[in-house]
Order: sequence, then structure tokens, then C-alpha cells
Amino acid sequence: MNTLEAVFDSLRAAHVELALHNRQKKDAALAGAMAAIDADRAAILAANSADVERARSGGMKEALVDRLLLSGKRIDDIIEGIAAVIRLDDPIGKVKAGWTLPNGLLVEQITVPLGVAAIIYESRPNVTADAFSLAYKAGCAILLRGSSAARESNRALAEAITRGLGEAGGVPGAVALTGSESRDEVDLILNARGRIDVVLPRGGRDLIRRVADNARIPVIETGEGNCHIYVEPGVRMDQAVEIIANAKLQKPGACNAVETLLVRRDALSALMPLLAEHLAGKAELRCDGPSKAAVSASGGLPAGLVLKDAVEEDWPAEFLDYILAVKTVDSLDEAINHINRYGTRHSEAILTNDLRAAEEFCRRVDAACVYTNTSTRFTDGGEFGFGAELGISTQKFHARGPMGLEALTTIKYRISGSGQIRQ
Amino acid sequence: MNTLEAVFDSLRAAHVELALHNRQKKDAALAGAMAAIDADRAAILAANSADVERARSGGMKEALVDRLLLSGKRIDDIIEGIAAVIRLDDPIGKVKAGWTLPNGLLVEQITVPLGVAAIIYESRPNVTADAFSLAYKAGCAILLRGSSAARESNRALAEAITRGLGEAGGVPGAVALTGSESRDEVDLILNARGRIDVVLPRGGRDLIRRVADNARIPVIETGEGNCHIYVEPGVRMDQAVEIIANAKLQKPGACNAVETLLVRRDALSALMPLLAEHLAGKAELRCDGPSKAAVSASGGLPAGLVLKDAVEEDWPAEFLDYILAVKTVDSLDEAINHINRYGTRHSEAILTNDLRAAEEFCRRVDAACVYTNTSTRFTDGGEFGFGAELGISTQKFHARGPMGLEALTTIKYRISGSGQIRQ
Repeated sequence: MNTLEAVFDSLRAAHVELALHNRQKKDAALAGAMAAIDADRAAILAANSADVERARSGGMKEALVDRLLLSGKRIDDIIEGIAAVIRLDDPIGKVKAGWTLPNGLLVEQITVPLGVAAIIYESRPNVTADAFSLAYKAGCAILLRGSSAARESNRALAEAITRGLGEAGGVPGAVALTGSESRDEVDLILNARGRIDVVLPRGGRDLIRRVADNARIPVIETGEGNCHIYVEPGVRMDQAVEIIANAKLQKPGACNAVETLLVRRDALSALMPLLAEHLAGKAELRCDGPSKAAVSASGGLPAGLVLKDAVEEDWPAEFLDYILAVKTVDSLDEAINHINRYGTRHSEAILTNDLRAAEEFCRRVDAACVYTNTSTRFTDGGEFGFGAELGISTQKFHARGPMGLEALTTIKYRISGSGQIRQ
Repeated sequence: MNTLEAVFDSLRAAHVELALHNRQKKDAALAGAMAAIDADRAAILAANSADVERARSGGMKEALVDRLLLSGKRIDDIIEGIAAVIRLDDPIGKVKAGWTLPNGLLVEQITVPLGVAAIIYESRPNVTADAFSLAYKAGCAILLRGSSAARESNRALAEAITRGLGEAGGVPGAVALTGSESRDEVDLILNARGRIDVVLPRGGRDLIRRVADNARIPVIETGEGNCHIYVEPGVRMDQAVEIIANAKLQKPGACNAVETLLVRRDALSALMPLLAEHLAGKAELRCDGPSKAAVSASGGLPAGLVLKDAVEEDWPAEFLDYILAVKTVDSLDEAINHINRYGTRHSEAILTNDLRAAEEFCRRVDAACVYTNTSTRFTDGGEFGFGAELGISTQKFHARGPMGLEALTTIKYRISGSGQIRQ
């Protein structure tokens, strides 16, 4: 048997065992993992240094090296992330609904673990600990398939976690790293029907597409975000500018950052000069004709403003950069149609004081999160109060929007009788 | 563009329109479909006669012809099925949860339609109306891919439904039959990523497996049921026999019928003679050594009993027939392991008076429905009080167990703010 397939089997066995652990046992095991990571700081940092050195000598961009890099502070954050998961309620064993049938049968709908999950992710080593701790709390075993760039860091983290689980009476086999980072491994995972219950790709668009296109097991697609903000007249334009700037500038590489601004024609003159002034030197504007004209209508351009002409390719683009496309629309209807055509069903916002428009926007825009008068940047498990997140689902099946523990659960019906037979 | 792909697009457009209809509009349209089916009885029966004649002349078995056959009474049932869906609550627009964040943002989780569904089903024409009415109520458009055997019946039904929807102010384009019953069509459906949101195979094991193995869109696997009843000593054996007989005999072709009986060794002598007497002439027993010996221990075999030796192939078998396999186990643990090895995660029962055993069985058996002291035959949307069902999901992802309207919904987060930005 292939080595990885043996890992699938041991994960299944570990899940079966872990599924019977109560919250106290699971939290104690997670605390064990925390303590082991804390104890292994030196080894983890040394392993990470090796990864970073290899990355730099291979010519990795510093922005990407930064995602890979660990520090004492970042290890503190990883440990605190596990502590946050410990504080979360147990998602398992909740009676979601229950009722008694006319014949006296009691039917209860109870949450149970989904089973064995796999996560395929790119360079951040913190995902190793985050994904493990969420899966463990949900009674799921997890297969971690990190990137080759983070190989040593992930190994050191996984070793600490496994040892910590064992020392604290947990199920060490509930977490496993794949042995290499080959494409063959990904293919084996994507074809592991009946052995892996869900695969979560976390990373860039190409990774997500490749997994979604090739998986023969359930996938939760995450993260691709071409998000819009649509502005109507009648709002406080200084507030609108603040919201747009927040959605664009606070973390442009995030999937919930705004990429295209839609402005109703009769709001252009009030919004665009203020916005251009605010974004000058901070983000490039790619404007269609009317919005470009509105920027300069009130006089000269602000110093430092990069102002370009928008092209068709800008509308579907997820820039993940300090770039904002701007398109003029004549109506709410046009804005909604643009979003439903080009958006990725992630996070979409309307800034308006028109109640009917807000209602219609929220009803007709097809997205995981629809916002009124606030920034798209709030689409996040932490912000929503979920404590931690596995990612943001952009699909409709099984899980949608920020995913907390619940995405790793399913239900079981328990029916209690006293001799009933079906008539 | 391929004709079927044009149908995908028109279904999408119909779903977008239908998603905005409130319950009153949807129920009025469903009533229109009911009235049109009622008005078209003669045409539907004539079309069905043509199908039946073709089936018989092609040598179809009478049991299958019966599944295909419509009658005045069966059309009444189809109409009543739509009436039942009309009486169901609207699954759309429910606020499942809502909370206010520390910064004042109101977050609401609201149910919305899943989108466009496809169903691939075998000969029963009533599925045409059932699937349509459930999908319509959930705001989903549906593509119906019936069997060639039911071609004329399905066409006549779909024509009536479409006309009825139009006459009652509904969205006639929300339902479409595929143009033929070719395999190519199925392939197009299974590859319609981004165009069809879920495919439901309803029929035999081969169909379900083929769809699940080949789909590149979300699937809900339904119906495969190798169900078990496990009997411990200490229960009223007359009641146990009644439950087992109900689970085996009431509808042996149903997926929730019992296929294998597991008997704890120390319950054999009390159970087997009674059971053999009850099932003699009604169902064949395929027993392992100890259970076979127990049947005849008290004297001669009951008249008419068919008693065979069980073989390994009987344990994974879904007989869908008047056949019951019987296996002796030495412990609850052995019973649970047998079920988790051979079962299809559908419906599993324990008959016991031991509270600890009942708890352990229900926790450790991995199935959509776990039963204590009652028949497995209750796994059914109607019995559970869902009013109607799309099928019984044997998977853990998105939907599990009897599926009512909720399986065709997803959620959307609506976030209402007053200028908040992310810190």
C-alpha cells in the first residue's frame, strides 16, 4: 500500500477514537499541544530559519518570505490561536432540533464530526496549527499538506503538536503531515473517496481552481474575492471615502479587500474628488471615462495620484494590490448585474441611505456576505465572533462565508422508540 | 451552443427571478401546476399508456412496469403531493441566527435558495412532480433527467406543470426536462460547474455510483441502504420479532429495509425460533452457523421456512428482497464494528434494554439515522414530519438523512452597518 494511503487509514482510526472524546479531553489535549509548541520554540525557529534561508537563496520575494517567517511573537500568536480554540464551545453533541412523532418516537438531530479533513495550503506555517486545532476540537482528524517552502517549519510544528497530544492523553494520530509536497500526493488526496471527507484548499486562485477542478471528494472552495462597493448619492461622502479606503488599504492582499468601486453617475461629482485626494499616493485608480472626468472636474489632480483608464480586464480582476477599479453605473440594477456577473460571491457592499435600495441590493446580490454602509473587510471568522476560522467559503454547498468549527461537523439523527413499527 | 447548455442558462435566469418570489407567489404558482395536472389527466394517462406499452413490449418486468404505471389514483397522489408542499413553511428568508458585534454591526444569517438543481432519476413519473414542487418552493430551478422508459409520461407532466406555472403568474422556466436520455446529457450535467449547483441521483446503486464517481459539481448521494438491526438479550422477543419483521417485510425494496440481523450469542435461543416461525413463508433466512443452529434447536423447522447458509457476500449485500442475513456476534463492540464495516451509513438499529449499550451504539455507529427499539423503516421525510422528501442522503456533506426543503437552501450573511470600518 502506498504510504500516504496508510496515513489515510490511520487518520480514519484516529478520528473514530477522537469522535468519542468529550470537550474536557479535547481541550486538555489542545493545551498539551500548546505547551509542546512553547517548549519547542528553539527547534521551531531553527527549522523556520532553514526554510527562510532556502527561500531567500531560491529568490523568493520578500513579501512572500514574510508570510513564511516565524518569530517569537508569531509563535506566541500561534499558541494564543490554540488557546482561542480551547475557549470555543464544543461543536459536537449539540442537539440542533428534536421532536416527538405522533407514534411517540423521539427524533433528535445531533451534531457529529465530519470525519477526516485534508487541507492543502501555501506558505504560512501558522495555518498548520490553526487547521489542526480547529479540526481537533471538531473531532476530526486532519491531513496537512503544506508547501515545500515551509517544509521544515511545518515538520517542527507537527512534531511538537503530536508529542503534546500524546503527553496530554489526546489522540496523536489525529494530525499528519504529508511526506513530501509532490503533485502525486495532491492527486491521491483529491481521489481519496470514502477516506477523506473534505478537502480545503487555502491559497491563491490557481491552487483553489486546481483542487476544485480535480477533486473527486467534497471540496470547500475558499478565498477568491473580487469584492465591490457600490455608492449611491445621498450618503455622507466623507464616510463613504473612509469605508472605501478601509476596504482597499487596510490589507489589500486579503480576499475581502475591495477591488472595484461602482458609483452611481449622480454621485460621481461628490465622491470622486474626495476619494482621489484620500487615495493619492496610496492606491492607483483605474477609472472608466465618467469617473475619471469627475476626479479632475473640480480642478487639478491631487499630488501623487496615479490615475489610469480602466479596461475590460479590470472588472473580473482580483488585484490583491493597491489598485482600485472604478466604474460608473446608471442604476442600482446595473450595479447588481455587474456584481453578479464579475463578482466571486464573496463580499459585496452598498453605501446608501435609501432603504429600498439597501433591501434590494442585499436580496439580489448573490454573495456569501452582503453589506450595508460598512467595509467589506469584516468578512472574517474572528470579526464575526467565531473565534477562529478555517477560511472563507465562496461556495454555497455545505458551508458559506467565514467558516468556524461548524463547517467540520455534520448531523446524525437519533431516534428513540419503545417498539414502534411502521404502519 | 449546445441545446442543453442553453437550458442551463435559462434555468439560471429562472432561478434568479424565482428567488425573489415570496411564499404567496410560489404557492399560487404551485397551485397552478396542480390545477394543470388535474386538467391534463387524460393526456398524461395517454402518454403513460404509450410508455407502459413500449416497456411491456420491450420485456420490462411487471414489478418495474408497476413503478412506471400511472392511474387516476396515482395522479391524485401526485396532486396531493404538490398540495403538501404548498402547506410547508417557506424555507427561504428564515433568519437562522443574528447577533450584534461590539462595533455595532448587525450580522444576520439568512436562508437563500441553493440555485439550480438537477435530478437524475429512474422510472417513477411521480418523482417529476415531487422534485419540481420541492425545488420550486425552495426558490430553485430544476433540471429533470428522467429515464427513457418514462419519456412520454414525464413530458406530459412537465408540459402541464409549465403551463400551470405560467397561468398562475409563476416562473415557467424554473423547470426543464432534458431533451433526450442519452449518456452525453448526463456527462454535460455532471460537468456543469458554476451552472448547476447540485445534482441528485435517485435510483439504483449503479446510477448513484456513476454520478458520484464522475460528477465535477456537488452531488448528494441518496438511497443506498444496507441496514442492520442488532438484538441484545433482555428485550421482549415478541416485540423484537415484530420490529424485525416490519423492517424486513413492510417494503423490502426500500432503502431503509433491514438486510442483516446481528444477534448477540446469548439472545439466539430466545429470538431465532420465534423469528423463524414469524418469517416462514415470508422471507428467506441466510444464517451463520450459530444462528442456524438456534433456529432448529427447539425441534423441527417451521413449515415453509427457507433457511440457507450465509456467505461472506451476504454481509455487504443490499438485497432489496425478501431475504434476511443473520450473523451472531459476541458483543456490542463486534456488532458496531460489523455495522461500521459493512453498512452504508443509512439506518441502523439496536434492540436492547441496556441503557449503556443503547448510548454506545448510537454514539459509535456511523450512520445518518441510529435507532433504539424501533424499526429502521422510519427513515423517511414523510415519517419525520418534513412533509415531503427529495431522497435520503447517505453522505455527510451538506445534507444527511431524509432531505426536505432545507437541502435545497444555503445561507447568506447580511451585515448592516452605519459607517463602521475595520480597525
